[in-house]
Amino acid sequence: MYRFESDYTEGAHPRILDALVKTNREQTPGYGEDAYCETARRIICLACGKEDMAVHFLMGGTQANTTVIASALRPYQAVVCADTGHIACHESGAIEATGHKVISLPSENGKITALQVRKCIEAHWSDPARIHSPQPAMVYISHPTETGLIYSKQELGELRRVCDERHVLLYLDGARLGYALGTKENDVFMADIAKLCDVFYIGGTKVGAMFGEAVCVVNEKLNEDFLYHIKQHGGLLAKGRFLGIQFETLFRDGLYLELGKSAVREAIRIKDAFRSAGCDFLYDSPTNQQFPILNGAVLEELKKNYSFSIWKELPGDRTAVRFATSWATKPETVEMLVNDIKRACRIYGEKTPSWSAEMPE
Amino acid sequence: MYRFESDYTEGAHPRILDALVKTNREQTPGYGEDAYCETARRIICLACGKEDMAVHFLMGGTQANTTVIASALRPYQAVVCADTGHIACHESGAIEATGHKVISLPSENGKITALQVRKCIEAHWSDPARIHSPQPAMVYISHPTETGLIYSKQELGELRRVCDERHVLLYLDGARLGYALGTKENDVFMADIAKLCDVFYIGGTKVGAMFGEAVCVVNEKLNEDFLYHIKQHGGLLAKGRFLGIQFETLFRDGLYLELGKSAVREAIRIKDAFRSAGCDFLYDSPTNQQFPILNGAVLEELKKNYSFSIWKELPGDRTAVRFATSWATKPETVEMLVNDIKRACRIYGEKTPSWSAEMPE
Amino acid sequence: MYRFESDYTEGAHPRILDALVKTNREQTPGYGEDAYCETARRIICLACGKEDMAVHFLMGGTQANTTVIASALRPYQAVVCADTGHIACHESGAIEATGHKVISLPSENGKITALQVRKCIEAHWSDPARIHSPQPAMVYISHPTETGLIYSKQELGELRRVCDERHVLLYLDGARLGYALGTKENDVFMADIAKLCDVFYIGGTKVGAMFGEAVCVVNEKLNEDFLYHIKQHGGLLAKGRFLGIQFETLFRDGLYLELGKSAVREAIRIKDAFRSAGCDFLYDSPTNQQFPILNGAVLEELKKNYSFSIWKELPGDRTAVRFATSWATKPETVEMLVNDIKRACRIYGEKTPSWSAEMPE
Amino acid sequence: MYRFESDYTEGAHPRILDALVKTNREQTPGYGEDAYCETARRIICLACGKEDMAVHFLMGGTQANTTVIASALRPYQAVVCADTGHIACHESGAIEATGHKVISLPSENGKITALQVRKCIEAHWSDPARIHSPQPAMVYISHPTETGLIYSKQELGELRRVCDERHVLLYLDGARLGYALGTKENDVFMADIAKLCDVFYIGGTKVGAMFGEAVCVVNEKLNEDFLYHIKQHGGLLAKGRFLGIQFETLFRDGLYLELGKSAVREAIRIKDAFRSAGCDFLYDSPTNQQFPILNGAVLEELKKNYSFSIWKELPGDRTAVRFATSWATKPETVEMLVNDIKRACRIYGEKTPSWSAEMPE
Repeated sequence: MYRFESDYTEGAHPRILDALVKTNREQTPGYGEDAYCETARRIICLACGKEDMAVHFLMGGTQANTTVIASALRPYQAVVCADTGHIACHESGAIEATGHKVISLPSENGKITALQVRKCIEAHWSDPARIHSPQPAMVYISHPTETGLIYSKQELGELRRVCDERHVLLYLDGARLGYALGTKENDVFMADIAKLCDVFYIGGTKVGAMFGEAVCVVNEKLNEDFLYHIKQHGGLLAKGRFLGIQFETLFRDGLYLELGKSAVREAIRIKDAFRSAGCDFLYDSPTNQQFPILNGAVLEELKKNYSFSIWKELPGDRTAVRFATSWATKPETVEMLVNDIKRACRIYGEKTPSWSAEMPE
Repeated sequence: MYRFESDYTEGAHPRILDALVKTNREQTPGYGEDAYCETARRIICLACGKEDMAVHFLMGGTQANTTVIASALRPYQAVVCADTGHIACHESGAIEATGHKVISLPSENGKITALQVRKCIEAHWSDPARIHSPQPAMVYISHPTETGLIYSKQELGELRRVCDERHVLLYLDGARLGYALGTKENDVFMADIAKLCDVFYIGGTKVGAMFGEAVCVVNEKLNEDFLYHIKQHGGLLAKGRFLGIQFETLFRDGLYLELGKSAVREAIRIKDAFRSAGCDFLYDSPTNQQFPILNGAVLEELKKNYSFSIWKELPGDRTAVRFATSWATKPETVEMLVNDIKRACRIYGEKTPSWSAEMPE
Repeated sequence: MYRFESDYTEGAHPRILDALVKTNREQTPGYGEDAYCETARRIICLACGKEDMAVHFLMGGTQANTTVIASALRPYQAVVCADTGHIACHESGAIEATGHKVISLPSENGKITALQVRKCIEAHWSDPARIHSPQPAMVYISHPTETGLIYSKQELGELRRVCDERHVLLYLDGARLGYALGTKENDVFMADIAKLCDVFYIGGTKVGAMFGEAVCVVNEKLNEDFLYHIKQHGGLLAKGRFLGIQFETLFRDGLYLELGKSAVREAIRIKDAFRSAGCDFLYDSPTNQQFPILNGAVLEELKKNYSFSIWKELPGDRTAVRFATSWATKPETVEMLVNDIKRACRIYGEKTPSWSAEMPE
Repeated sequence: MYRFESDYTEGAHPRILDALVKTNREQTPGYGEDAYCETARRIICLACGKEDMAVHFLMGGTQANTTVIASALRPYQAVVCADTGHIACHESGAIEATGHKVISLPSENGKITALQVRKCIEAHWSDPARIHSPQPAMVYISHPTETGLIYSKQELGELRRVCDERHVLLYLDGARLGYALGTKENDVFMADIAKLCDVFYIGGTKVGAMFGEAVCVVNEKLNEDFLYHIKQHGGLLAKGRFLGIQFETLFRDGLYLELGKSAVREAIRIKDAFRSAGCDFLYDSPTNQQFPILNGAVLEELKKNYSFSIWKELPGDRTAVRFATSWATKPETVEMLVNDIKRACRIYGEKTPSWSAEMPE
């Protein structure tokens, strides 16, 4: 059985483990005050072209989102995101548990537009009875989105413009940021993100680390007393150096970018195989997650040797599934999968008037 | 200027003030432990045919909703309601402030169906990764809805059935319950509500009281330590008797029902006037709130002498507005309004292909 | 049975009821946007010598405390108070329910000193690991305290100085403010409070109103978006004018002060009676609450005709109790009580080496 | 510089790193559903003699405490602990951030007694106005305590008895459990803890793991939907196997116990050195944390080569400090430290009438 069900099926990139082993007996202060964290912070700032940016290392995505959002908003304020946003549907109400409403905007592909955001915010402020509604005060986007798509620099710039005009914060969840950076179509680089967002995080867990996310606080107002927030949300790792060492490794010698590229390359091979075999896609993703639509027979056939995620049941015996690659995906495994896709689709596939043709992408 | 902007523009029904004045010098224990509260509780239980039901008096609707929902749900559980539901959009995130997600179901008329609820709950439970999502554990409906509509006994029964099958609680917000009871079309009586819901509240503030809502806890599991919850939410009135006296008055000699009927009667006169004059309606409400759609000229003309709420801007110079009546609405004022409607529509109205014809109701 | 168990055993002062009755049929906008609230705000500002102060009317003390504290603090910040403080022990954890720690300072008489506060705050800031502790950011005092005592102008000034030096907010809970103002020993006037505190509230519920507290926000930073907070905490009364009318009445023609004075006068008569009869006191209160220490026999004797609160069991068959007076306490009832105290103590009292002699006050 | 400032100055025990490296390329499902977690759970259950106990792996102590307490309590309920308890003073208000009051009992040595707990709980239930106070519903103890002390089996049994009688939950924070188990004086074994507590956690972070705590839920009522709670608190590690592998390693071949013993052995050598040199101790700790009281000269002398924590300033130029050992403390380093202690105390120490003689322990 080969697993393509997620980008966290293997452990950590070997260079990371090496670094952890090599430094294991050293003594350091706790809670992120060690030299490794310091170095990692400096390297990340350099990579973002923002020397005065604060960088904090947290343990996971939900923790990062909760800490950032709860620290930035006042009690009556809400965060706006796509209805497919991670905070809207995959964090067990963690944001609400900190007291804040998540305002979901309808999105067919996982992205939200500046226009949608503007309308939502203006609707609030033009309402004379607005004090009866949660006040939208932050925009949350994920890049890549949960659907594998990426924002263009222009789209991100437009979101920034709305945020500036309406005095709203912009937060980018980069749980899979490496896979956006590793995509040919991408024109949003780390320096752009650091320029356009108030706060964002660089995902480690899903891009080769054992665990860990680097929260970058660009807007210095948001950084006030941020460590208290981290501690309060259980995010202050005692042996904090484990985070510093991992991020130092990821951002040395371009490893992070390299991991992103290799995972995307393998994902595109899978995409091409499905496309050549006549499959449609739920989302036209250029990143490490691919969402082909399979009929029941093809799906069953592929399940024999591969695990992948059932994403959405569609009408007419069709199912959108997800294949995810990672730093650990081997080209030879993908080779095998590609051949199996071809074979399964040749035998069991039929090219029917496509459901996905009607899907806006 | 005559105000039709809400059902709380005047003070309290005179009989309530009389009762408050008459008992003013009596000494009673605080916090709802007085004889007036006790009597009011007993009368309400009788009116609901539920002698063993717990009744608690709170000060307002948001407080009632927050207290009920926060006391009934565990931290990861969510409440399901229409996207127009009061808790979803008119309480400044009060429910989220207690830690719970409000799951909004799309609704074009303010009601939700048993089918919608079932799908929402089943989607959660059939998701193998469901622990990543808030768990829907309570259904919130308002009756009448914020749009003036009422549930039929059959609809309520169907909601109950889903709740029973899926082990979910049913909560009815009766902020305007009197105006449902006072409607000819209504077939949901207080005994039905007490039989079908786990918990509900009978609105006083909008139906003739100074302030106050009677929270009726039918499901005894929900009543455990409920007083702590009330206190924690700031809802334990020191001079609690003021609530008891008001509810005793409202439920003596059928006053509550009488107030509902008279307000609805006047609302229907207004509705008929708009209808006869060719107006369409945003919602086909049988209760004390009416939502006619006016063109700009008619709207301006009526604004000269009447205040009412702007509800929704529609395409083509049309605006849905709200006229609300209450216990205090005088027939002679409505007479005047009816004449002004007729006149304004005759002069400024034009019957065009109606926008609202396309509205599902 | 005559009730001295609290200062909310009767209804509202007759002038308040009169005003409510007189204005009952008027139509006003809701949620505190009416002319009565406006007038009441203006009068209170005048009384405080602070024209630019924001005044908001809430329904009760717990609601006021919760709304003020939750709106002013960031999530990791705590409020400091006496261990007898209302928020520390009589609000069912309402402050914690908004996410904030209440740091209790030990107090033998219900007051806290500037020195105590300074030490608490400096202990935090001098701790190199302070991010692991809640950050003290607000000082809460009640005036009079729950023990009936009052702060002097000098004490209040010293607290202000610490708060200024350590950038901490000062909040005064004036649930019984009228009874401090009505005390001869008092040298803290409303203008002093408005000058020295960032925010405070003037209690209505316990000083003659049906219900209601006037939250005065002096520090304008704390007033930003305050209405959202009120709404979120269920404190935005639909028929808000009921609060405006009550406070307008209380602050017209010196009624508030007059009520304070008359209640204190009667309380001091009770105090004098106990003192003359040889009783000690748990606290040496100059306000409307008196805390005599009774032996079992005297206590039983007085219970026959009067209700009062059992405050604290003491060693040696002694019990501290509380007698509270209010606007509604009649001189002739106190006359009767005074005689009964004398009689009971003459027959059943014995002057023993006093427990309270060891009590620091 | 040799660090004795905490028990998390080094990385992870080599066997743990070996296991991580060895399994790194394996593919597993995420979120703790892998075989390593399953095995670790089984081994822990065996070690506790409780086969039906639920075991969940979380990332850190604050996260474990927050998740356990917030999942177990209803909104108005509080947790009782020593005033030195970790949740009371070292978690930045994390418990309060979930809405619950932490009731601190005064403790001079970090332990609380069954009698204290009983009094606290009975004071609540005997108060007729108890609904105005947070309801104590859980007892939190740490074992060893933050002061290095351990509970005896009898003490734990007495706490259990109170909890049973008063229907209150007992939760044991075993962040340093290994160091209690590794102590000669200890008579509380894992099976005792599993028998006497409703829920407890076995600390990994401070006992040789990279990170991780094993929350053991004995009382099955508390386990209902526990995974939602973990996810909501950001504690569901994507690559969950990293926790399983670590705990499997710790609980195979007695490694956990062995680490505890070796750290304690070294700590006792340090203790003996201070004692022989005439030092007093703030707490008479039998575990891996030692709290000698030093005069300024000795302190300065030792600071030249060793880092340790300043614990408490005492009168008369004396300071209580903390030396902590761990799995990684080398006997030769301790040898050196012991000699330096002797030398420093010989030169700079003077045996004065001891402050600590007055300390109750």
